[in-house]
Amino acid sequence: MSLPLEPMYPLSVGLRRVSIRRRNRPDIQQDVVVVEEPLQISVNGKSLVVTMRTPGHDRELAAGFLWAEGVLTGPGQLMSLTGPSPSTPTGRIGGDTQIRVRDFAGDRIDVTITEEVAGSVRARPEREFRATAACGVCGKTEIADLQQDLPSISRIDTSPALLEKLEHLPDRLRQAQKLFDATGGIHAAGIFDLEGQLLCAYEDIGRHNAVDKAIGHFVLLDHMPLSDHILVVSGRAGFELVQKALKAAIPLMVSVGAASSLAVSMATEAGMALYSFAGPGKGNLHLKDE
Amino acid sequence: MSLPLEPMYPLSVGLRRVSIRRRNRPDIQQDVVVVEEPLQISVNGKSLVVTMRTPGHDRELAAGFLWAEGVLTGPGQLMSLTGPSPSTPTGRIGGDTQIRVRDFAGDRIDVTITEEVAGSVRARPEREFRATAACGVCGKTEIADLQQDLPSISRIDTSPALLEKLEHLPDRLRQAQKLFDATGGIHAAGIFDLEGQLLCAYEDIGRHNAVDKAIGHFVLLDHMPLSDHILVVSGRAGFELVQKALKAAIPLMVSVGAASSLAVSMATEAGMALYSFAGPGKGNLHLKDE
Repeated sequence: MSLPLEPMYPLSVGLRRVSIRRRNRPDIQQDVVVVEEPLQISVNGKSLVVTMRTPGHDRELAAGFLWAEGVLTGPGQLMSLTGPSPSTPTGRIGGDTQIRVRDFAGDRIDVTITEEVAGSVRARPEREFRATAACGVCGKTEIADLQQDLPSISRIDTSPALLEKLEHLPDRLRQAQKLFDATGGIHAAGIFDLEGQLLCAYEDIGRHNAVDKAIGHFVLLDHMPLSDHILVVSGRAGFELVQKALKAAIPLMVSVGAASSLAVSMATEAGMALYSFAGPGKGNLHLKDE
Repeated sequence: MSLPLEPMYPLSVGLRRVSIRRRNRPDIQQDVVVVEEPLQISVNGKSLVVTMRTPGHDRELAAGFLWAEGVLTGPGQLMSLTGPSPSTPTGRIGGDTQIRVRDFAGDRIDVTITEEVAGSVRARPEREFRATAACGVCGKTEIADLQQDLPSISRIDTSPALLEKLEHLPDRLRQAQKLFDATGGIHAAGIFDLEGQLLCAYEDIGRHNAVDKAIGHFVLLDHMPLSDHILVVSGRAGFELVQKALKAAIPLMVSVGAASSLAVSMATEAGMALYSFAGPGKGNLHLKDE
């Protein structure tokens, strides 16, 4: 059963006007910054985690997060998502209204999953359940908690023809970004097919949220795993993003920025192709060390 | 009582050699990436949190993290820190040795704090204690958990003369970075005095870790709060970095990148001066909206 994606938002949902004084200018001017606000994700009535995110596409974010954390593992497990939407504005987002930072009103999205899956989540050690975190690391109290069951990856042939396609994907993702032009400070993640066609692109102030939204798009469509898809990220490739990609069985990940040591070893051991510093005429395909 | 800082490390501690195939080059080449590895922070024998960090200066990282989380609040509370050090190499960091990513051996640092402080930590709701997280957000399960007691900030006069000094600080921080030149992918945070003198600079793959290390430097020296210091960060100014700066009572924060909506409202409400997009001839001083 597929669930509806969130509609496209007006840009203002992710932007807020602020007052600044620029260097060498005496007057007060208006500028625009990316909205960063807390979202609490509740599953079957139980609060699971809080993440700081850019409002808009909270449904995709929650769905992708629950897949990355192994709560959702297959079709038909996600029943409904009820959260803030642009058609029911809270009066806090998108306008000039100040939020009161000390009480963190925030937003909440309520997710309902099948009782069978919810039961397996409840059966997890309470510590692990509580420590679940959007970035894949923080909040965990033991290094052993970092271990995740990962699906096997279908290796793809990284032919010269494919690599030539990859160098253009960051530009295509960049063109799909809407908030970046206004603010200069937001991450993006996009899912492409193996022909280099952009299927979806999402922006967020948190790079792990952008990836959750992009993968969550396909969780909502009940179109998982993403065994013949490419994940492109606007920044660096770190451990937590590679882990999210592996959870979705994505065979190829492209990053505009550098890769970390753990991202490289995790990707190459799992058989995922990792292509860092991608751009016109450049890109590094990481190879498994013997 | 001040505790010793970690000595300067050989660069190799934070770097790892990897094999790549570059676009348009048929041969296999060697490249260098930033090390990202888990560190478990234990306090008085109890595991508190795991963070992914770049090895080196784990003592500063742990001290700064515990200050940011409100575990440490004053002088003399930190008794000892015992962790991995460059003089006792584990055989995993800095060399060409592959880490086995699936078992996340990782490192551990054991922190001892006074029984009085440890008692107050134990008295916290267990949930809150467990949810403590390096990035200030992830792992928390309720939005209310985000609220922190913050010290009052001594406002400083953001005169034209001061703003002129600020635009040069990012360059000075950049010059102090060692790992960035080798890898192109690492964050930095530095503490300056109000005259613009660099007092310490630290690098890490995680921007919150870089800030924890820089503030932890002064926690180890028992020189808190930082009421007449400037924090400079190489990237964007997000909520969690502003929160860490406020916890240390830092009156002025400078970022090379954009600020988020929550960073702006939190800083301006607390009376902290936030200067984003700083660089030669430019910079935005954020003002409180009425």
